[in-house]
Amino acid sequence: MKAKATERIILGIDPGTNITGYGVIKAIGTVPELIAIGAIDLSKYDDHYVKLKHIFDRVTGIIDEYHPDELAIEAPFYGKNVQSMLKLGRAQGAAIAAALSRSLPIFEYAPRKIKMSITGQGAASKEQVASMLMNVLRFRLNETKLDATDGLAAALCHFYQTNNPIAEKSYNSWKDFMNKNPKRVRRQ
Amino acid sequence: MKAKATERIILGIDPGTNITGYGVIKAIGTVPELIAIGAIDLSKYDDHYVKLKHIFDRVTGIIDEYHPDELAIEAPFYGKNVQSMLKLGRAQGAAIAAALSRSLPIFEYAPRKIKMSITGQGAASKEQVASMLMNVLRFRLNETKLDATDGLAAALCHFYQTNNPIAEKSYNSWKDFMNKNPKRVRRQ
Repeated sequence: MKAKATERIILGIDPGTNITGYGVIKAIGTVPELIAIGAIDLSKYDDHYVKLKHIFDRVTGIIDEYHPDELAIEAPFYGKNVQSMLKLGRAQGAAIAAALSRSLPIFEYAPRKIKMSITGQGAASKEQVASMLMNVLRFRLNETKLDATDGLAAALCHFYQTNNPIAEKSYNSWKDFMNKNPKRVRRQ
Repeated sequence: MKAKATERIILGIDPGTNITGYGVIKAIGTVPELIAIGAIDLSKYDDHYVKLKHIFDRVTGIIDEYHPDELAIEAPFYGKNVQSMLKLGRAQGAAIAAALSRSLPIFEYAPRKIKMSITGQGAASKEQVASMLMNVLRFRLNETKLDATDGLAAALCHFYQTNNPIAEKSYNSWKDFMNKNPKRVRRQ
């Protein structure tokens, strides 16, 4: 048998009760590739439970279709008020429950961390993130579909974080590098 | 065939990431009866996702065991801070997702509303609520198990609210009563 480059499928989700964006990437070795991108439009439903049920059912469906190995979710740690955080928590809870019921490991990233990881700037605009995603994953997206990119960005951020963690680190000195990466330094 | 008094099974849940309390009652006509009461202890798990997975799995299991017709949940509308609300929202989201995946209708009640409905006082203590539950449903509970009563209280509150909505209403006058209960007044 021939050795094979590691293949991973990552699902990224940006849960919300109006729009839940998702993206799926496949990475063979160090090359990420776009598999799917989409937005679940929940704004057309008035009933809060119908929204949550759609999040749970659609995320379950996406997992059963693409068989991801991991789930990355965009998870803000603050919000306008407790009411909006409760709502957001429920949307996240429904998406997370879907992933857990399929035994997927879950990784959370703050919006700033995702933007930083994709564009190098924590305060990057949606357009800048979308533009970088399209370059890296070689696809074109209609501007009206920007809502779909946050899920995909979470997936790619998770890929960067776990594929090459060293790229995110910064070093003051060679000593600093050695301290932070003991396994990469061969001691005589 | 003989006409039968309406039978309903109500599951009540008080979701939380440390303790998730639950109670099941069966009501034949106007008489509620205790079927089950329990607390899912999640404090022993450190991992947030393990907690959420247990909430989802256990609520699913309880539904599959008792086949309730409705779910009543205790749902505070405010909290200490946005962080705690996000956590609570996720716990609620996992419990709600379990109920939705079994197509249960869901009803939410604020803690104050539940206490008011059970004891007549919105600011009643846990002990007062437990004492009233034990009287109405004719059971004894060890004092150390008070955590389990909030779920049961939500179930009984929902039963009171839907079985006899008139009891919660108040009237200024006979005219007011007629306006609020058009079906209970026989017009000549």
